[in-house]
Amino acid sequence: MAFTRAEAFAPASMGNVGIGFDILGLAFQEPGDIVEVELCDQPGAVMHSIEGDGGILPLDANKNTASVAANAYLRQIGAKQGVSIRLCKQLPLGSGMGSSAASAVAAVVATNALFGSPLSRQELLSACMEGEALVSGYHADNVAPCLLGGITLICGTEAAQIYQLPIPGNLHLALVTANVSVPTSQARAVLPTTIPLKAMVAQTAGVACLIDALYRGDVKQMAAAMELDGVVEPARTHLIPMLKEIRTAAKAAGALSVVISGAGPTLCAVCDDAEVAKEVAQVMELVYKQAQLACVARCTQVDREGAQVLSLHE
Amino acid sequence: MAFTRAEAFAPASMGNVGIGFDILGLAFQEPGDIVEVELCDQPGAVMHSIEGDGGILPLDANKNTASVAANAYLRQIGAKQGVSIRLCKQLPLGSGMGSSAASAVAAVVATNALFGSPLSRQELLSACMEGEALVSGYHADNVAPCLLGGITLICGTEAAQIYQLPIPGNLHLALVTANVSVPTSQARAVLPTTIPLKAMVAQTAGVACLIDALYRGDVKQMAAAMELDGVVEPARTHLIPMLKEIRTAAKAAGALSVVISGAGPTLCAVCDDAEVAKEVAQVMELVYKQAQLACVARCTQVDREGAQVLSLHE
Repeated sequence: MAFTRAEAFAPASMGNVGIGFDILGLAFQEPGDIVEVELCDQPGAVMHSIEGDGGILPLDANKNTASVAANAYLRQIGAKQGVSIRLCKQLPLGSGMGSSAASAVAAVVATNALFGSPLSRQELLSACMEGEALVSGYHADNVAPCLLGGITLICGTEAAQIYQLPIPGNLHLALVTANVSVPTSQARAVLPTTIPLKAMVAQTAGVACLIDALYRGDVKQMAAAMELDGVVEPARTHLIPMLKEIRTAAKAAGALSVVISGAGPTLCAVCDDAEVAKEVAQVMELVYKQAQLACVARCTQVDREGAQVLSLHE
Repeated sequence: MAFTRAEAFAPASMGNVGIGFDILGLAFQEPGDIVEVELCDQPGAVMHSIEGDGGILPLDANKNTASVAANAYLRQIGAKQGVSIRLCKQLPLGSGMGSSAASAVAAVVATNALFGSPLSRQELLSACMEGEALVSGYHADNVAPCLLGGITLICGTEAAQIYQLPIPGNLHLALVTANVSVPTSQARAVLPTTIPLKAMVAQTAGVACLIDALYRGDVKQMAAAMELDGVVEPARTHLIPMLKEIRTAAKAAGALSVVISGAGPTLCAVCDDAEVAKEVAQVMELVYKQAQLACVARCTQVDREGAQVLSLHE
């Protein structure tokens, strides 16, 4: 149990997965945040340093998702010692890729390793969510896939209400993130508070179709179902630069569908082939570049493991 | 092709399956309607006779779901001859068990057999729906499971939009039908036209949970998910006699959940054991009898085959 330093990686993730507003999440293999924690005699978590955030994130332990989550974990295990946190941000902020969740999860997973892993992966969920709550509300859309990996169905805030869904084998994803900020609060404010009953029927049909597709390993049906969202995407389209153009170009290059990742602006194209995904990423990047909009394009797959301990020192 | 007489059985079915309003259907092994058709030289379908309806259903060929569906089928294959229909009603009318769908499906399946089965099961869907449309609107909630069997996900009105879902092995159902009429039109009129966005999120989570449970063969999770409907059941509770009392009594006897079958008044209790289902059926019957309400209780399972040709005569 006598560890002094631990380092963990936590992956980016996509809330919603298109049709599944507030109930589905998916972990990406990359990018991800890295957190190193060092044991301190002083109780509680403090932020030692942050890299890669452009100086935006707070070092105040009460205001950073990593330290708030680590503190919740330390209280949970009744630790008498504390941790000093080095956060290496590799995820863009406010991009719809679960940046705050990744920092919180990496901090908690690293701290759990430091203390000899007294808690199971599932038992870490609530501490991670406390960190996430600081910026995004107390929900597990990003925290659950980031912590557990895979594609997760989130029916509540308890670990027992989170289900791992099957991951189709030939699922390849192309992501493009325009250099614009879409604060989650704004992306939530534009949503309707009530919807027609008919829209609920269509939404439940789409979600059912998506779960069915995952179990049958049918990427084409999965992709088609993801795009059936008639409630959330239409309300947010104006917040995402050139969504229609990106979708058209990506599909012409072989993508099966394109959805908003979380609250955006990241767009996720679903492909059933690695080479096609590469080409789709290039094409999406080109659309933004031709419009003089800075962006980052990536290819990735679903992360199956969730956050990982990278190193542990005695 | 020289058949003169054909007889078909079509099973009862449950629309909605609890949480899945307007998108899920489930076929029961029993009861079901039986239709016999006889070849006529005159084109079109006519009603020869109806048994078991208490004299309520119309013999007018334009007003009976069986003849309207058969007529749609005859037009579809361009038949020059027609059929005379004997309908043996075994399903109670207006009971939420897909009575109109069963008559339509039995008529179409019998007529298809009579003409040498030129059309596939899937190709029969639209003719069956035309019959159903006469009384319940153009949808496949009951027609699809009745025609195809099993548990069906209905994402539209085309055969390609209907998916067969897995059926858990140890699924046993107890049904009770109080002798009150709940017209589908009334059951639809009480529904809200708009719902809160949060209710949509809960409904999609419940549906996702149900589909997940079906694929994992988890009857307990299936039953729990079916009861998560927070939109349709609350609006209809007052139309169903003693729903709360029946649910409480059924659960005390071992039922895992109780939901309204279709628009009601039939209630369906989900069990994972045949003996328990028998006892639950008795207990539900007793609740109504003690309240001096006439009712019929049944035990059944999911029908896996759909409508069946019973006999075919040259």
